[in-house]
Amino acid sequence: MNDIALDERLEADTFPVTELPLCRVLLMDDTRFTWVVLVPCQPNVSEVFELALDDQAQLWREAGALAKALKAGFDGDKMNIATLGNVVSQLHIHIIVRHHDDAAWPGPVWGVGKSIAYDLEQQGETRERLLALIEGLDLEPESHA
Amino acid sequence: MNDIALDERLEADTFPVTELPLCRVLLMDDTRFTWVVLVPCQPNVSEVFELALDDQAQLWREAGALAKALKAGFDGDKMNIATLGNVVSQLHIHIIVRHHDDAAWPGPVWGVGKSIAYDLEQQGETRERLLALIEGLDLEPESHA
Repeated sequence: MNDIALDERLEADTFPVTELPLCRVLLMDDTRFTWVVLVPCQPNVSEVFELALDDQAQLWREAGALAKALKAGFDGDKMNIATLGNVVSQLHIHIIVRHHDDAAWPGPVWGVGKSIAYDLEQQGETRERLLALIEGLDLEPESHA
Repeated sequence: MNDIALDERLEADTFPVTELPLCRVLLMDDTRFTWVVLVPCQPNVSEVFELALDDQAQLWREAGALAKALKAGFDGDKMNIATLGNVVSQLHIHIIVRHHDDAAWPGPVWGVGKSIAYDLEQQGETRERLLALIEGLDLEPESHA
């Protein structure tokens, strides 16, 4: 995996969870939502279609598997998956567990109210929960890809 | 392709453009944005990961190729690709051409201001532009899939 630099704003708004075959996994530092951000470790990419086709397939494989695991593990009502990048140009994919009683439902989460940061204990606990979910996923690139 | 029913709200807010191997292509009836919606022709699916793995791959193949073509054809500054589905549960993927001077920049488009409908002439012209872009795309499922 290339050890590419993370955009400063992404770095400030998140904390690191782990690395998948293609993407770094970050958690948005906002306890109101379980809100994961995937950052493909490829330099100078802003749009999904700027990745090689194999990497695009791997990105969506990772996003889909993670979204499925998060919905089950955090008892979500709906998953939101999005790549916007209007402010931060480094390609990143939002994967957000939504609940019918969350702070933004049924609207999108971006720009709604103020984030509520995790304390260190909450960070550790949530990171452990995420790692346990991710551990069970089959995310290796397909051999024919 | 299965001829599945389209959610009433999606039908009211869009007009049809064409069909791809997996997805129906709709255009949001709002001249402020070039805003396409892909609806996989599979019944009773709300989340991407509820599709078969091959169909997930095909969905993202169609979304990526279409986003790339739209960015070039409509001179976009950034593409937004998202599946939210908090209001309409039928699985649908937004592909939105964003411009630095558009009505919502740099925020997301959902829930911003009031939509401005196309007149019939504009609908026809935009549909033709979209069809010309889509015609050149290679969207067939991969043979090994």
